[in-house]
Amino acid sequence: MSNSSPSTLRIALIQLLSGTEKHANLLRASKAVDRAASLGAQLISLPARSNSEYATDKFPENAELIPATIATLDAVSSPSTAALSDAAKRNSIYLVGGSIPERDAASGKIYNTCLAFGPDGSILARHRKMHLFDIDIPGKMTFKESETLSSGDSVTTFDTPYGKVGLGICYDMRFPLLSMLLRQSGCSILIFPGAFNTVTGPAHWELLIRARALDTQCFVAACSPARNPASKYQAWGHSTIASPWGEVISTTDETEQTIFADVNLNRVIEVRSQIPVSQQVRTDLYELRLK
Amino acid sequence: MSNSSPSTLRIALIQLLSGTEKHANLLRASKAVDRAASLGAQLISLPARSNSEYATDKFPENAELIPATIATLDAVSSPSTAALSDAAKRNSIYLVGGSIPERDAASGKIYNTCLAFGPDGSILARHRKMHLFDIDIPGKMTFKESETLSSGDSVTTFDTPYGKVGLGICYDMRFPLLSMLLRQSGCSILIFPGAFNTVTGPAHWELLIRARALDTQCFVAACSPARNPASKYQAWGHSTIASPWGEVISTTDETEQTIFADVNLNRVIEVRSQIPVSQQVRTDLYELRLK
Repeated sequence: MSNSSPSTLRIALIQLLSGTEKHANLLRASKAVDRAASLGAQLISLPARSNSEYATDKFPENAELIPATIATLDAVSSPSTAALSDAAKRNSIYLVGGSIPERDAASGKIYNTCLAFGPDGSILARHRKMHLFDIDIPGKMTFKESETLSSGDSVTTFDTPYGKVGLGICYDMRFPLLSMLLRQSGCSILIFPGAFNTVTGPAHWELLIRARALDTQCFVAACSPARNPASKYQAWGHSTIASPWGEVISTTDETEQTIFADVNLNRVIEVRSQIPVSQQVRTDLYELRLK
Repeated sequence: MSNSSPSTLRIALIQLLSGTEKHANLLRASKAVDRAASLGAQLISLPARSNSEYATDKFPENAELIPATIATLDAVSSPSTAALSDAAKRNSIYLVGGSIPERDAASGKIYNTCLAFGPDGSILARHRKMHLFDIDIPGKMTFKESETLSSGDSVTTFDTPYGKVGLGICYDMRFPLLSMLLRQSGCSILIFPGAFNTVTGPAHWELLIRARALDTQCFVAACSPARNPASKYQAWGHSTIASPWGEVISTTDETEQTIFADVNLNRVIEVRSQIPVSQQVRTDLYELRLK
């Protein structure tokens, strides 16, 4: 952050109640973005599975082709990209578009993808979920994204006037090394569209958000869908924003709503000065690096 | 863990009330180890600064020469090593001797050192605190270990029939990469003698213990001294043991007492199978390694 950067930022997390109809979900999301922006939000995130049902067998049919830039956007093959870009531009805000299934045009592979848009509607970043959600807690929760999804291979950030923002999707939060790589790349804010469930949510959701915030001394925002009683996958909800001190500064329950936090980026500088772990880390003894 | 390893283990953390008199502290610690062992504890930890006052200007005068093996022990130059080794052997238990100031015979440097002893009284491991506690939270907590201490340069583990145990001291807990290195080296249990204070304790102590446990899917035990109202450094207390699922399984307040947990090492195997992050970590994209 340079000295001329604005130091305060209103973040909004839209805990969207989404259903099985993509068009309806996109419309509901767009309206929620408009509302959050009208309340002063400058950086807004949608949740994981923001446009469609979260089920491995639904990923292929919901997958869209996502263009490299908005200039080559085809709203028929990527209605979600079009709706999200429009919402960012219409409101002149930074928008993290939750996660949506993406089909790669060249390989045909399907990804769980998070797009970030600038206030002009441009695509600033595309994060393909790096760590796929394959878990097996017998009798409680079994899910295997790798049956239909491929994993991304990039550590993803984008620049804003408020500082650098790092992206991860849901299960990516469980990997401290990814968050530390985002920290090493200069992020001040990490955003994780996520959708933990009623088994892992109460045990790990808030713990991981606070831990990643404290470890990286970043603001960390994790945006969940609302719990839809009609859905097979019961989302935990509880969208949460934590400070670089590791404290929860905004959170909620499992119902549909938007949470806000006014964050002061000077707090990042202050905490990193008070407890200077990023200077004390023993890079002379060990290293974390991209291959 | 091999199939023939015992799967259950009683851990005890001695939240010792220590004062300025080293001999009295060692006697009190030895008696507490005897009591914990008589109640069935098989792996016992003492807290940080288990033998002396925690103040940077006191480290040099309290520092002891610690032999490489117990065979060359000189009880005059290292009364703490002698007392701890005796306590381990007398009770036939594994003992993590908290942390004590050590003077290196060759260099004259002072370290904050944790020794681990086997049931025969032998020294199994020596961890010199790798990350020194230099923090500055104006008006609340300022401390600078590096004024008098040098930092260690080894990732430290020791083997037990219950599994491999990793050691860190206090501030080392703030560095996720160290815990991940301990995990990579095969640990099932991490032990951190620590002494957070009344500023950082309520904010970060439990969060870090649970985070390190969840990230590494290890049992994590952090042993604090009791709060001594007469001490300049007001310890947070709250010695805590967390499970590989990231849940607190034993904890306490700030008063002198010993906490216990019966842990089943099969739980480590189970959690690592249910949420297999150590197999899913993207070692093809990034790596954490010792230099």
